Amino acid sequence: MEKAVTEAPTTSIRISNRARLTPPSPIRKLAHLANRAKAAGTRVYHLNIGQPDIESPPEFLEGLRAFDQKVVAYEQSQGNEALRAAWSAYANRTLNLQTSPEQFLITVGASEALVFLFMTCCDPGDEIIIFDPTYANYLGFASIAGVTLVPVLSDMEHDFALPDRDRIERSITPRTRAILLCNPNNPTGTVYDRQDLEFLFGLCEEHNLFFVVDETYREFVYDDLQPLSMLHLAPQSDRVIVVDSLSKRFSLCGARVGSLITANQSVLAAVLKILQARLAAPTIEQFAAAYMLERIGDNYLENMRREFLSRRDTLYRAVKRIPGVAIHKPRGAFYTLVQLPVRDTDHFAAFLLDTFSHHGATTFIAPAAGFYMQNDRGTDKARIAYVIRSTEIEEAVTVLAAGLERYQQQYP
Amino acid sequence: MEKAVTEAPTTSIRISNRARLTPPSPIRKLAHLANRAKAAGTRVYHLNIGQPDIESPPEFLEGLRAFDQKVVAYEQSQGNEALRAAWSAYANRTLNLQTSPEQFLITVGASEALVFLFMTCCDPGDEIIIFDPTYANYLGFASIAGVTLVPVLSDMEHDFALPDRDRIERSITPRTRAILLCNPNNPTGTVYDRQDLEFLFGLCEEHNLFFVVDETYREFVYDDLQPLSMLHLAPQSDRVIVVDSLSKRFSLCGARVGSLITANQSVLAAVLKILQARLAAPTIEQFAAAYMLERIGDNYLENMRREFLSRRDTLYRAVKRIPGVAIHKPRGAFYTLVQLPVRDTDHFAAFLLDTFSHHGATTFIAPAAGFYMQNDRGTDKARIAYVIRSTEIEEAVTVLAAGLERYQQQYP
Repeated sequence: MEKAVTEAPTTSIRISNRARLTPPSPIRKLAHLANRAKAAGTRVYHLNIGQPDIESPPEFLEGLRAFDQKVVAYEQSQGNEALRAAWSAYANRTLNLQTSPEQFLITVGASEALVFLFMTCCDPGDEIIIFDPTYANYLGFASIAGVTLVPVLSDMEHDFALPDRDRIERSITPRTRAILLCNPNNPTGTVYDRQDLEFLFGLCEEHNLFFVVDETYREFVYDDLQPLSMLHLAPQSDRVIVVDSLSKRFSLCGARVGSLITANQSVLAAVLKILQARLAAPTIEQFAAAYMLERIGDNYLENMRREFLSRRDTLYRAVKRIPGVAIHKPRGAFYTLVQLPVRDTDHFAAFLLDTFSHHGATTFIAPAAGFYMQNDRGTDKARIAYVIRSTEIEEAVTVLAAGLERYQQQYP
Repeated sequence: MEKAVTEAPTTSIRISNRARLTPPSPIRKLAHLANRAKAAGTRVYHLNIGQPDIESPPEFLEGLRAFDQKVVAYEQSQGNEALRAAWSAYANRTLNLQTSPEQFLITVGASEALVFLFMTCCDPGDEIIIFDPTYANYLGFASIAGVTLVPVLSDMEHDFALPDRDRIERSITPRTRAILLCNPNNPTGTVYDRQDLEFLFGLCEEHNLFFVVDETYREFVYDDLQPLSMLHLAPQSDRVIVVDSLSKRFSLCGARVGSLITANQSVLAAVLKILQARLAAPTIEQFAAAYMLERIGDNYLENMRREFLSRRDTLYRAVKRIPGVAIHKPRGAFYTLVQLPVRDTDHFAAFLLDTFSHHGATTFIAPAAGFYMQNDRGTDKARIAYVIRSTEIEEAVTVLAAGLERYQQQYP
């Protein structure tokens, strides 16, 4: 199989060790194979990446058309004022919170918020506790910020429930500065409840740690669950920092509009300095996002939630039928992990894209090793994002099953 | 005077040392005073920030309106393909270069390109040679990337010419990884010529260093000068990395569209990994930028250059008339440094915004200490950006002169 672009030959002048050692994104590293398959006429079902096919709100696209400034000037470093106000008001209205616009800093996606938070909470070499498996890009952010992520394993066998107190406390050292939780969880789809949050917050209080909660998928909860923010529980706490994003909630991944929300004035001031160094987030998306949040009704999100619930059920039922495959039933976000009867899902995922097709189609899954810091835990697993229509999910899973059968014949 | 927002009280849980030590932007740190002055009805002439008042190209705004994707999806991590192709073609056509689209990676402004380049060229603690005074945000980027900038002084008395070989070589250590040059220069407006570039490139070859050239202002050269890129001199060199931006050239500061350009495959591959970790740059601005670069004629830039030339002359003549003030005559970009008869331009700049006005107006200048790593070199200087109309520049300088007189009476 073709070598990834990340393995280009070294030249006479060498790049840094950290650049060499930065892990490639497990979500994107096979993208070149997918591009080639598409170029060869193969249909590729993208279950690898959290890019929903749901149309962005018309209010956002109207906002773009309403942008009428003659000079596309720098926005304020902390973010567009109307956007901070609209986001705070929207959160207060839909979640019954009491945030204020001053608690919001606007960032280029949740990604930028997390990188700058890592830098603000941690000096190089400091540690952040995460739960394994974890959102793969956290590893990249940690690498950028020179922060050590310390994984505590959550088991697929136990539905990825939080590890018990002992196991978490054994991982806390004098250099630990924060616990980072993604709730609902990417990549597992697990939803942590009030008790879970109170437990972790209590640990943070006891050990004087920040509690950083990535709530990108907050509204994507199914069955009888209701959205729960850490800002419901401890809105004024100095140690609580919430990271948020419009990417998934409004199918605006490409707009790259994120935020961090905290009552901690020192954190706000320190992050602002970094935001000023990079000058500003893009002007136009912020304008359109403010326009949208000032106008959008509740039905957009409710329809989206219903659609993902139905896709989850479709995926779960379809994967359950494949012999030898285990699937975790997620209650939130739009991901889950599956366990496959192969030794190395990296190799299998590349096989699907590179040499396999079924009736002219193939399926792109994200190998799970990249989501585990203890990589060997993920080698038989893959992350699946149910971000395409139910009929396509059915087809994608049929292709996956056929691919699995062929693969097992070819590599017995 | 009011305390800056960056000096908020510390709380029970402490932020990192690097966050505390990140220098505030000298360009933005007085923004809260300017906002307050404006709120009180004072007109503020912004000479502090490189935000031109020139209208963005109609082709860009047309591109925004032409965006018709129903889902605002993630762009490719390396950047929009049409944009990479259009930028390369534009550079080749207007500068007579032979770049290829694959040599371009699209970033969120030149800022992101520089942060990721610092990480790619340097491990934490490695060093980059810069010339003092330097673009203040380089210090912020270095702080983010854990890189040590090593300043070599260029003197206002010698028109900020490059230091001689000896002085530069004395600053090179085993940890030096790159020389970084901003050409034309921000904050001095100095333009380095072919001989300067060849001299620094030779040093880089001799000491096996990267040569990073920030060409954000490349086309802004006056008098008899022509735009000169490092890609004219050594387009295929493994050690040459050019950083570019649409921000100034097309008055698109708020679009945050930058790039890095190199023939070094290892650098491209390593930066791509970091780009993948942050997923993608914003989709819509990239779409509009591609649309614009495919269509824009040469007259936009030519008119802009003529306008800035005339503003430079206005500024230079006006400042020359103030007793006790020295001004460097810039031959490029749209900045210059002035030397003022005050002990501390930080204090003076805050005074202008906080307690002074002249016929209902005041002038916002950027204290130069933040542009000098040897800060004391800058305490009697300020950076002035000639980004407003000539008539306004005249008025702003009149206000500055009146402010200086009042200040000298008040703080003799």
